Parts: sequence; structure tokens; C-alpha cells
Amino acid sequence: MAVNRRFTLVSRPDGAPRPSDFRLVEEAVPVIGEGECLIRNHYISIDPAIRTWLNQEDTYMPAIAVGDALRASTLGVVEASNHPRLKVGDWVQGLNRIEDYSVCGPDGANGRVDVSRVPSPSAFLSVAGGTGLTAWFAVEEELQPKAGQMLLVSGAAGAVGSIIGQLARGRGARVVGIAGGPAKCARLVERYGYDAAVDYKGKDVDALRAAIAQACPDGVDLLFENVGGICLDAALLNINQGGLVVVCGLISEYNGEPYGTRQLIRLLMHSVAMRGYVLPKYAARLGEGRKALIDLVARGELVYDEHVEEGMENVLPAFMRLFDGSNEGKMVVKLV
Amino acid sequence: MAVNRRFTLVSRPDGAPRPSDFRLVEEAVPVIGEGECLIRNHYISIDPAIRTWLNQEDTYMPAIAVGDALRASTLGVVEASNHPRLKVGDWVQGLNRIEDYSVCGPDGANGRVDVSRVPSPSAFLSVAGGTGLTAWFAVEEELQPKAGQMLLVSGAAGAVGSIIGQLARGRGARVVGIAGGPAKCARLVERYGYDAAVDYKGKDVDALRAAIAQACPDGVDLLFENVGGICLDAALLNINQGGLVVVCGLISEYNGEPYGTRQLIRLLMHSVAMRGYVLPKYAARLGEGRKALIDLVARGELVYDEHVEEGMENVLPAFMRLFDGSNEGKMVVKLV
Repeated sequence: MAVNRRFTLVSRPDGAPRPSDFRLVEEAVPVIGEGECLIRNHYISIDPAIRTWLNQEDTYMPAIAVGDALRASTLGVVEASNHPRLKVGDWVQGLNRIEDYSVCGPDGANGRVDVSRVPSPSAFLSVAGGTGLTAWFAVEEELQPKAGQMLLVSGAAGAVGSIIGQLARGRGARVVGIAGGPAKCARLVERYGYDAAVDYKGKDVDALRAAIAQACPDGVDLLFENVGGICLDAALLNINQGGLVVVCGLISEYNGEPYGTRQLIRLLMHSVAMRGYVLPKYAARLGEGRKALIDLVARGELVYDEHVEEGMENVLPAFMRLFDGSNEGKMVVKLV
Repeated sequence: MAVNRRFTLVSRPDGAPRPSDFRLVEEAVPVIGEGECLIRNHYISIDPAIRTWLNQEDTYMPAIAVGDALRASTLGVVEASNHPRLKVGDWVQGLNRIEDYSVCGPDGANGRVDVSRVPSPSAFLSVAGGTGLTAWFAVEEELQPKAGQMLLVSGAAGAVGSIIGQLARGRGARVVGIAGGPAKCARLVERYGYDAAVDYKGKDVDALRAAIAQACPDGVDLLFENVGGICLDAALLNINQGGLVVVCGLISEYNGEPYGTRQLIRLLMHSVAMRGYVLPKYAARLGEGRKALIDLVARGELVYDEHVEEGMENVLPAFMRLFDGSNEGKMVVKLV
């Protein structure tokens, strides 16, 4: 008999997640009722945001309950259906539990996707998924970089950052990325459209400040922040009068005692605005963004990378890679 | 022969300003040339912002040069004039050096003020000066508190905060202030229009968080920040989804190693915007704000307090009071 494996939260992580915080449980595959369909999940999107949902407190999303399966963006195929709109064989994408089989009711948030125009269905979890869409609306709406402006991006080799560089450069801005290590820095310039890269590895805040100043000699007009910690302080030390900081992630702070940002005074002294940004802000416009991104990929004007691990047993190792930076591309776990 | 005393910067303060960082120098009273007038300064506005101009780096204002006199908003009377618009006997307000006599050229930034409608000319350095105007445009433009919203103000008993509470309450918002000690807290509620006060003295960030939560049981929609440090962190821990933080000052961080703000993640998790705000943003509209504030005072709808010290030799003690919180009202030094 087929089983449904679910990746569940046993205890809330105190700092970095440990294997003992999670358990893979096996249940019977659910039986669908009136108006429901059964989705076989093929791909699981592994994102830093998942870490922020493991804490006690609700954020822009409800916290994951202890004992429940973790939540992720997933891509799957409808295997059985009493659903009014979704048919057997449809590829569907939605926010579901991390499990082999998910049930979607008539008002559920899984939507049909057309996998015929993308290189792999998994594109709906990467360039045409949450991270690509986050980059799209960041550039189109939040940052709106103009020709001649300097945009600095931290976590630039990551799933969002790698798209940001290409989109922003397409608008004529100068784009500098911060990443860890020479290989990632080379990829920023050679593959992701960045004008220059700054390697944060081995640098303290003063050295990083100086390296950013060298790459951005006229200062930073726009900062797209994914990391926090000394990256953010060093960037703020280079920000121009009237600058804008869009905070999309603070991955260096998710697992432990926050570093403590010391340069907020730059907001005051240089009339800088800083705002948190998460994709649900543009929930009503995701289709528009997805179409634009797929068109760019189809025309060969946008490249993207996926780091695919296989099997439910690799969900945790894949998740942990996000925090040591060892993933190379958008992290996805392939189940089928 | 009359002398011109000037309060000059001898060395840039490293941390808290010390007497040895400054020197009172005496020079001859300047002789005016073509198109200039000579202003006898009667009042000097002593503001925390002056501390931020003593550092090496230019901000929204040029840094004060070592050897030059400090800069302040001053109020004086024209004593001699070749100026095309300013006549002997005119009261004028402007950004000048801290000195007995200032010279204003034909394009200078001193403007005539009508002292007949205010209780004391010094009102043009307090309620109708930079601090009152900062509060006015904060409430009218930056915060725009609406009925039913919760506005939290740190440094609420200060020159700006004491006006903010009254103006915001006039718009129907609920307003809670943070101040140091029971006397200031009582004044917030009894005199400055606050619905409730939170005393930060003796509290760590957890205790302050809890005290704010008690005063703001439905959370904080708008935060007007003047202090930084644990006040800001404790406030951010109470901020609501979609909240707004206007940073007008970070006085706890001006004199030393910044505390390091640990709760920036709240910006991300609750889609909060935070921006630095300084009055020059509204430079073109100061007359409009000044008129509105003077009208409110004249109608008895706005109270304000001044803490007046006398004599050039008390500029430094007056300045230092801003950092230990021992001033009671807008700090002004009266020279004449």
C-alpha cells in the first residue's frame, strides 16, 4: 500500500535547525472527498523563508504548528480528482505541506501550470516560482532601478539575487553583487548580469565597506538586502542621500542571535527609506510576473540555475545548505 | 570695544563631547560689507542634531570643520544693515554659527519673523522653530495618523515628542509615549496629550517590550523614533503588519558605539517600512507650518515648554543636558 511521507516539525529549532527537530512520518495516502483532488508532489521548493515559519510567532504567514508538516511551495500532478477545475494529469503548483501527496479542496490554493513552455517543470518553483517572482516584482515595483543608478544586491548568487542582476541590468542600472567566494563572484559577472562582484568571505565590516566602496565609487542608490549582519552594515556605510533599502531576506539572522545592525543612523543622516518586502504583497499579480519571466527565458534573455536534490530524505540536508551557502542555484527537492 | 564670542570645535568628540573638544574664542565684531547686515543673536537653539554635525563625515548637512564655530538655529535682531530686505530692529531667524554676532549676506538664510504673536521671541526656536516644525510635518506628512491607529513615540517628553502627542491626538489617533522617569511620564499624559506613558528607566528590552505591549494591547501601527537602542527594539517587537517607522532621531547612539538593532527582521516579517526623516525635506513649506503652529498656540490648543539657560558660557552644559535627559522642554540658550 502506498504511504504518504510527511516532513514534520517535532520541536521548534533554537538557533540552527537540527535533525532532531524534525521527523519523517508515514501515513496512509489520503482519500479525497467531494470537490477535492489528490496531488502527487513531484518537486518541493526549499527556501530560507521556511526557517522563519518554524518560530513560535506568526509572521506574514501563520507559524507551523509543532507536530504538523512543514509548508513549502510544491509542484505536482493531479492523480485523482473530484475537483471542479483540476483534472487528473494536470500539473499544479501551490503552497502545501512537505509530503508526497497533498489534498486540494475546491477553494484550495493550487493552480494549474503549463509546463510545455519551460525547460523543466521545476522552473515553476525557481525562475517562474516564488524566487523568480520575488525578483521580478522587486525590480519592477520595489526598486525600479533607473539608468545610471547603482543597485547593490547581497546574497547575489542566490535564487533571487541571480535573477535580480539580470533584470536590473536590463533597465540600464549598474548592478554590483555581494556573494561568498570566488566561484560565486565569478558567476555573478559571467552569468547573472552583474557589473561587478564583492566577495564577503573573510572580511570584517570595515574591509567589506571598503570593498563595496571600490565597486561602487559613487555610492549605492538602491540596496536589495538578503543577508543582514555585516553585509547590511557595510552596505549602509556606502548608501547615498535619498537611498532606498528593500529588505527581502536576512538569512544570516534566521538561525541565531541577530548581529545587531549598527548603521541605522545612516537612514536618518542620509534620508534613507528601508522596507521589508515579501512576495504576498503582489499575490494578485503573480500570473503577470510568471508570464513575463517565462517569456524572457524562452527568448534566451534570462538564465537561471537549479540545485536539485532527490528524495524526501534529503529535504533536511537541502534546507541546511541554504544556511552554509553550499547550494548552487535555486534549491529544489525532486520526489518523483 | 564689543567682542564676538564664538563657540568653536577644537577636536572632534570621540563618544560623548568633553569640554576640551570646544573653546570659546573672542574676535572683533565683524564689519558688514555691501548687501550684508549684522545680527545680534539673542537666542541659540541647542539640539541633538548638532552632535551629528561634529563627526568627520558630511550628512544631510556639511560637517562642522575643526576650528570653526558650531552651527545652530539662532534668533536675533538686526543691529546694522546694508541688506536689501532686512532692516535694523528686525527680528530674524536662521541657521548661523553659535556666536554673539552673525553676518548675513543678500542671499543669506536669515528670515524676518513677527514676534508679536508669540509669548516670547524664543518660540521661533521651539514650537515655531525647528523642533515644532519637525513635529508638524511628521504628523501632517510622514505619519498621518488616522482615528483608531496606535502611534508610539519615543523621546516623547522631548522638544519634538511633546508636540507630536498633541498634534496626533488632535487627529483621533491613540498616542503612547516613552520617556524616562515618573515626572516626564506624568507630563506626557497631563500636559502633552498622550493617552498613556511608558517609563523606560530601569527596564531591559524584554521588560520594555512588555510595558509597551500593555500600553498598546493591539500593537503599534506607527512608530515615531527619537531614541534608538533598546527603545527601538522593544517598539519593533510590538509593531503590527504593515506598520510604519519614522526615524527622527537616535539620540542614544550619537555619543558612542551603537547598540545594534536586533529586530530589523520585524520589517521583513511584518512588511514594515522605516525611513529617516529630517526637516530639510520640507524646507519649501516651513512658513505654512510655522503659521499653523503659531495659530494653535494663539488659540490655546497647543502647549510647549522651553528650558532656557543663560549666557554663551552655558552652551556646552546645555548641550550635555540633551544626552542625560535632564532638560525639561526645548533647550535654548539666551544670550541677551
